[in-house]
Amino acid sequence: MAFEPTDYLPYDFANRRHIGPSPEEMAEMLQTVGAADLEALIDETVPASIRQKAPLETGRAMSERELLHHMRITASKNEVFTSLIGQGYHGTVTPPAIQRNILENPAWYTAYTPYQPEISQGRLEALLNYQTMVSDLTGLEIANASLLDEATACAEAMTMAQRVAKSKATAFFVDRDCHPQNIAVMKTRAAPLGIEVIVGNPEKLDAEQVFGAIFQYPGTYGHVRDFTDQITALHEHKGIGIVTADPLALTLLKEPGAMGADIAVGSTQRFGVPLGYGGPHAAYMACRDAFKRSMPGRLVGVSVDSHGNRAYRLALQTREQHIRREKATSNVCTAQALLAVMASMYAVFHGPKGLKAIAQRIHRKTVRLAKGLEEAGFKVDPKAFFDTITVDVGPLQAAVLKSAVDERINLRRVGETRVGITLDEATRPEAVERVWRAFGITRKDDDFTPEYRVPEKMHRTSDYLTHPIFHMNRAETEMMRYMRRLGDRDLALDRAMIPLGSCTMKLNSAAEMMPISWREFALLHPFAPADQAEGYREMIADLSDKLCQITGYDALSMQPNSGAQGEYAGLLTIAAYHRARGEGHRNVCLIPMSAHGTNPASAQMVGWKVVAVKSDERGDIDLEDFRAKAQQHAEALAGCMITYPSTHGVFEETVMEVCEITHRHGGQVYIDGANMNAMVGLSRPGDLGGDVSHLNLHKTFAIPHGGGGPGMGPIGVKAHLAPHLPGHPEDGGGEEGPVSAAPYGSASILAISWAYCLLMGGEGLTQATRVAILNANYIARRLEGAYDVLYKGPTGRVAHECIIDTRPFSDSAGVSVDDIAKRLMDCGFHAPTMSWPVAGTLMVEPTESESKAELDRFCDAMLAIREEIRAIEEGRMDRENNPLANAPHTMEDLVREWDRPYSREQGCFPPGAFRVDKYWPPVNRVDNAWGDRHLICTCPPMEDYAEAAE
Amino acid sequence: MAFEPTDYLPYDFANRRHIGPSPEEMAEMLQTVGAADLEALIDETVPASIRQKAPLETGRAMSERELLHHMRITASKNEVFTSLIGQGYHGTVTPPAIQRNILENPAWYTAYTPYQPEISQGRLEALLNYQTMVSDLTGLEIANASLLDEATACAEAMTMAQRVAKSKATAFFVDRDCHPQNIAVMKTRAAPLGIEVIVGNPEKLDAEQVFGAIFQYPGTYGHVRDFTDQITALHEHKGIGIVTADPLALTLLKEPGAMGADIAVGSTQRFGVPLGYGGPHAAYMACRDAFKRSMPGRLVGVSVDSHGNRAYRLALQTREQHIRREKATSNVCTAQALLAVMASMYAVFHGPKGLKAIAQRIHRKTVRLAKGLEEAGFKVDPKAFFDTITVDVGPLQAAVLKSAVDERINLRRVGETRVGITLDEATRPEAVERVWRAFGITRKDDDFTPEYRVPEKMHRTSDYLTHPIFHMNRAETEMMRYMRRLGDRDLALDRAMIPLGSCTMKLNSAAEMMPISWREFALLHPFAPADQAEGYREMIADLSDKLCQITGYDALSMQPNSGAQGEYAGLLTIAAYHRARGEGHRNVCLIPMSAHGTNPASAQMVGWKVVAVKSDERGDIDLEDFRAKAQQHAEALAGCMITYPSTHGVFEETVMEVCEITHRHGGQVYIDGANMNAMVGLSRPGDLGGDVSHLNLHKTFAIPHGGGGPGMGPIGVKAHLAPHLPGHPEDGGGEEGPVSAAPYGSASILAISWAYCLLMGGEGLTQATRVAILNANYIARRLEGAYDVLYKGPTGRVAHECIIDTRPFSDSAGVSVDDIAKRLMDCGFHAPTMSWPVAGTLMVEPTESESKAELDRFCDAMLAIREEIRAIEEGRMDRENNPLANAPHTMEDLVREWDRPYSREQGCFPPGAFRVDKYWPPVNRVDNAWGDRHLICTCPPMEDYAEAAE
Repeated sequence: MAFEPTDYLPYDFANRRHIGPSPEEMAEMLQTVGAADLEALIDETVPASIRQKAPLETGRAMSERELLHHMRITASKNEVFTSLIGQGYHGTVTPPAIQRNILENPAWYTAYTPYQPEISQGRLEALLNYQTMVSDLTGLEIANASLLDEATACAEAMTMAQRVAKSKATAFFVDRDCHPQNIAVMKTRAAPLGIEVIVGNPEKLDAEQVFGAIFQYPGTYGHVRDFTDQITALHEHKGIGIVTADPLALTLLKEPGAMGADIAVGSTQRFGVPLGYGGPHAAYMACRDAFKRSMPGRLVGVSVDSHGNRAYRLALQTREQHIRREKATSNVCTAQALLAVMASMYAVFHGPKGLKAIAQRIHRKTVRLAKGLEEAGFKVDPKAFFDTITVDVGPLQAAVLKSAVDERINLRRVGETRVGITLDEATRPEAVERVWRAFGITRKDDDFTPEYRVPEKMHRTSDYLTHPIFHMNRAETEMMRYMRRLGDRDLALDRAMIPLGSCTMKLNSAAEMMPISWREFALLHPFAPADQAEGYREMIADLSDKLCQITGYDALSMQPNSGAQGEYAGLLTIAAYHRARGEGHRNVCLIPMSAHGTNPASAQMVGWKVVAVKSDERGDIDLEDFRAKAQQHAEALAGCMITYPSTHGVFEETVMEVCEITHRHGGQVYIDGANMNAMVGLSRPGDLGGDVSHLNLHKTFAIPHGGGGPGMGPIGVKAHLAPHLPGHPEDGGGEEGPVSAAPYGSASILAISWAYCLLMGGEGLTQATRVAILNANYIARRLEGAYDVLYKGPTGRVAHECIIDTRPFSDSAGVSVDDIAKRLMDCGFHAPTMSWPVAGTLMVEPTESESKAELDRFCDAMLAIREEIRAIEEGRMDRENNPLANAPHTMEDLVREWDRPYSREQGCFPPGAFRVDKYWPPVNRVDNAWGDRHLICTCPPMEDYAEAAE
Repeated sequence: MAFEPTDYLPYDFANRRHIGPSPEEMAEMLQTVGAADLEALIDETVPASIRQKAPLETGRAMSERELLHHMRITASKNEVFTSLIGQGYHGTVTPPAIQRNILENPAWYTAYTPYQPEISQGRLEALLNYQTMVSDLTGLEIANASLLDEATACAEAMTMAQRVAKSKATAFFVDRDCHPQNIAVMKTRAAPLGIEVIVGNPEKLDAEQVFGAIFQYPGTYGHVRDFTDQITALHEHKGIGIVTADPLALTLLKEPGAMGADIAVGSTQRFGVPLGYGGPHAAYMACRDAFKRSMPGRLVGVSVDSHGNRAYRLALQTREQHIRREKATSNVCTAQALLAVMASMYAVFHGPKGLKAIAQRIHRKTVRLAKGLEEAGFKVDPKAFFDTITVDVGPLQAAVLKSAVDERINLRRVGETRVGITLDEATRPEAVERVWRAFGITRKDDDFTPEYRVPEKMHRTSDYLTHPIFHMNRAETEMMRYMRRLGDRDLALDRAMIPLGSCTMKLNSAAEMMPISWREFALLHPFAPADQAEGYREMIADLSDKLCQITGYDALSMQPNSGAQGEYAGLLTIAAYHRARGEGHRNVCLIPMSAHGTNPASAQMVGWKVVAVKSDERGDIDLEDFRAKAQQHAEALAGCMITYPSTHGVFEETVMEVCEITHRHGGQVYIDGANMNAMVGLSRPGDLGGDVSHLNLHKTFAIPHGGGGPGMGPIGVKAHLAPHLPGHPEDGGGEEGPVSAAPYGSASILAISWAYCLLMGGEGLTQATRVAILNANYIARRLEGAYDVLYKGPTGRVAHECIIDTRPFSDSAGVSVDDIAKRLMDCGFHAPTMSWPVAGTLMVEPTESESKAELDRFCDAMLAIREEIRAIEEGRMDRENNPLANAPHTMEDLVREWDRPYSREQGCFPPGAFRVDKYWPPVNRVDNAWGDRHLICTCPPMEDYAEAAE
């Protein structure tokens, strides 16, 4: 008996472990859903016409150990030099406590976007700290909770300026001292909107000509300038003044607010966030209070809960693209939450005094570096600088760069004769000496008297980070506990299923997460010489290849660093294709009514006209209407944007026809990849007729949501579009401009998706899809009878998610979808997607990662909620005062006098809720309207904390 | 203003961050304690006579970044070869989810020993899983919660056999197929106890001659034998049969219980615990039910709480050394909790089917390896094996070993002509091929049919791991949540101060913890050739050097892997010294009454007679009594064991006189290093007259407690004792035998203490001591008036801990020290050390890591508790039904009917308790006696879980 072989594959962890239900559980579940086996279920669910013909061949599954071995070999092909290239990317020291307790802690990295504030108070507090930090450092009243990168933040500021400026000008001025990638991204963004970009010397600014201008300090070549005069002039002509500024420099330098700036943007990367070959990092945006309703991105604000206690939540959501759709002026919908949290913790760790000291040291080091060069006879520019200088070496540029590389240092090539050097927190004295050696200078770094090279009038005179949170005790013990407390307030994937339709909250496995902490992935500058990044190149090439196989596309761009960014890049690619064929006039985009709001928003951003196509009562595209609209706009048809399977979670059989119609009228087909988790291995958008798709690597390919970012949204295209993919000035240029600051977007987290693909292999990836579909059908079947499941396919199956109708309860019991969502918190769950794509419904996507036990816990909770609704319907429970209306219940509810017509037990421990391991929302239901009426987006005074603590 | 330099040292994190109070807080605290400045407080506290003369010069403090750089360089000097040496240490695959969620998670690694069961339910459950696993695999009824290593477990089994055997024989038989280090440690342990060790062939066992015997399978050279006959013979002669067995092999092989074994021991290292150049790993011990009260080590058992709910706690504590003192038969007091938890999770991850499959694969690989060798004409031994074979290569031994090393493979040197090879879970097919190449064979690993080489009668026929916990869903999502849930049930340093007197629960900083996960530290076999471990050697040498400087000793042994082991090793060293001088008769040890129970227990283990010395009413050694006893036993005086500062937390001025008296009468002085945190940088035991001390690296030098281990207890000695330090057969031999299985004990965690020393520098280490003393004095002062603080020094100061008298409340209010300890849980604290060194008191040691805010939170809680006691005293509160008697309060108390004479609020949220971040003990007060009466030490049936969940 002992030697009877088993079928267990001990090395095959990841593949099996990514898949929640055990084989035995799957058998039970198949019985429940009434399918003979998994393949039969898939046959019933996914129409034969759209199935891919051959099995997915992306390689066999690796074990976790093999994977880590493979990743180590790849990592070793990246060479970690000291990069003093600057250009918006700096060496920084990530405090190990932040690395371990935030970046490597599933409580933080597996959290979802804080749309449900009651279970997100921890990260909302951390993000409010971030906003306070940005607002303080920039001297502007309102800051958002981060943007994707500095370059896109510049572009967002530009379009925001256009919205808020009273000037009627259509040109926009860009300081030639902005970083080249920022200028390039602004140009990309400006073109389709008809904004003329004037790049020039701020001294020469003609304020009347433009609706706004952007200036940068320290400039890309190091200049530290005061833009007060330019901004005053802009204001005189009803224009908007924008400033890009390094937040660390702002601890020493006169802040944008003091220059009169309306908007400030920049990157908080150097606040402890690893370079990661370009990202992810959190960019910031701050503005004057008057413009807050025009600001893109997420904004955390302070409100109250139903007991009047302070509570955080996302504010002013009506500004956002998913509500404004084609009226949206930006498609920004994700942020870089995890990185913003890290940056905010870095500021909490150091406090204002510490940040200032770090900045001073960097500056003094740079002064020493400059003096060493000057004393050796080199010409150093500029006179006034913070951390960046350039040296004119004439024809020796190549020689100096080469000799720096021999010292394992990367310097920046500037023009034909200059070399740029930017120092940072991590630069050691011996690195300065190595730089000198690259210039042929032999000397020690210790024979200088401290000196500053910032003119008096540029010194900062105002306080910053005065809030007590930035003056807390900084012993690691206290910091560790603060991070733990905040993390504990939130409900993330490490405690419960997050069944968010369209968001695919799947396992982010430990093995996949580990390599991103490795220095060979973490410490590379995005503009480091290509031969130092061979590991990255190899990884990106292989991942691209796998994603092409998965999607049926021919080429891929890794540049877009969010899903919406991917949409935008995809449409730009289509537009460029039309232009190249002399059909640049094509500007109509057909989008079904049921599309996600980012679709029309993205179309708007490329200057297209959105024509809505009806959906039928089953949520499918109305083919007749589609055909009619395509015909009607045939001349101008640029393309269509569809989601597959549809946002209603249905595999529409008509998809190929839709594509065919679009192509027939000269359009290109954009297939939104949000629902790829229902397709991988079973069906390929490229085979269906798609010309371009973006992939949400943070949905389908295991990158964690990080509490609201990072995301990655690479796009795949057919061969004919490949020449029109985004280019990048630092990576071979290309015909088209870049959409992101870095050539490969948030490159470091590509390692997660690559690891996921390697661990799963082709068969594992396919099995994940099958089980995701099984899990959704299991939930749909278990809830049947109690709830109506909308939008099933013709065989009664749903795809990888299901929509549950809660609209009837509004009349029958006065119960809203919100009530159910909040009641689910009492049961220990994050609510499903609410009121999207259909108002008054819940869209549930369990993913393949959830076990039957967890699905059952969820179904039990939902069924118990239905019983509570029934009790209200039947008058057995009060219509106003019931567990649904009062949800979520907090620990405080248990402590205070209990005056409810139901028991404490029923209120706090409904089916689904763990007993010993109960998760308690820290606040009762949050009042969103109150918060928007009394908008506060920085940390409230400390007394409030003290009160709250009592 | 911006450029006014600050005194902030941004790179100097660790030093400042290890020290809890900020400079401002320290100023306030000094005012409270009434000291002019920190130095003045130290002068008042630490007598000038014992102060060290020169500042500690262990180098300047490194920043965290420098540290990690330095550690990386050191790590790179270790070479990770594939070690197929076996001998009790095996390659294993640590599942990344366990690594990240247990080993690298402060919720697990910063926890204390689960003496307070109400706040330790999570790790108690994990340890109960461990015991169940061991009990199942060995087929014996009772298993403990781990021992230090396999060799010491063998020795413990030997002495246990002597205790329980009815045989009067004094000899003990040891299978010559036991691992050499196990035999060596048993010999070390046997000698002072007068046990004659007979090493031989089990076939030749004369059962009448011995009180017990130990057998091993698989044997160190691979043999798989059935010892049923030998054990039967032993039983016939009232002897005890012990078996050492590899738990992985037991998934395939007939288990010790089935052979009739009374005791089984072994190592669970290969259950996912990295090699770590020797440790830490968890050894196991299991025995027949009849012997449970004689088993050393900790035992987790099932009991009930005050509401009758199931609750875990440590069982049968009256067996333990700290209670039995000089009657103790073992000094084992720590375990390897963190590693036992990892091993148990590994078993949960794989389940019985998985473990068996892993074992089968290893076996099949070994068969293929053997066949390849045999077919090439080599002579392979033995015929029946599991994972280990030897090959006789005659005079080519050195050549084969060398050619294996050229293949980056370590094989084992066996005798003069043989080579040993042990395969493991991590051995890849290409490694087998490399082994063949080392023997000159070129072939592929894929041309064999599967085959087994274990004789039928050795096949296992019984089930194991049948409990549902080993059959849970193994998706990583489920496993991650299980680990999170268990971790959340416990209160560890990542949430609150753990003010345990004598246990020094200080910060274990993230930077210090990181390197132990690096493969260069994690994956080295302890018997790998020295030239592959140069990084380790360098680290150990430098750490030894620093610890010598800190202690004033001349030489150090890193071998003891716990504090008690250090005591034992220290006394052995003294005994060897006496023997070497022809004074081997010296066998009296003076030990103050106030000593920790391990002191007399350790003395007993080296065969010494313990003579107790009185303490005066201030807790100090009664010098007169000491002098008198020393004189009385002058002829036989072996030495004394004292603790400094005393276990009462006082710097006794008489310490040098005590040493002098001891020396005058020919004895040696052992100074227990438990309280070194009050001395580092201020006073050196070596200067006071100590001849030997052990250091608890897990107390003073930042190794985390891991929830009850690992620990490390290296000993420092004066030069005259250096030749008598423990040797090790695998590391140059030496005159004396080894005390631990590996030459450097739990070598991998030495990296933590080394990192701590490097980060702090000499001045930082000294400052930590000063602040530890300040923190203790601050608590003492704040509690003054409300509580009596016992045992202050002559100037009214305490050292680094203070003892609070709670005895009066027993009469005045019927409140016990236990009540206060449990009530502190309601306030969100782990209780201080209870009833030690004085019954009815609490000993509080805050350490330097705690901030003023946390100290105040604790003091507020203690003062509020005093007020509650006063209310009882004054009749305002019921003597039976009050918050103290009912503590701790659980969430369930809030839910159920509240029939208490005080409010829910007062019950559950006393001062100190966090509000939103409240920690809830998962159970009410645990009934220890009930559990001991109804002893259950394996997982209870699943129905119980279901009930508990309801």
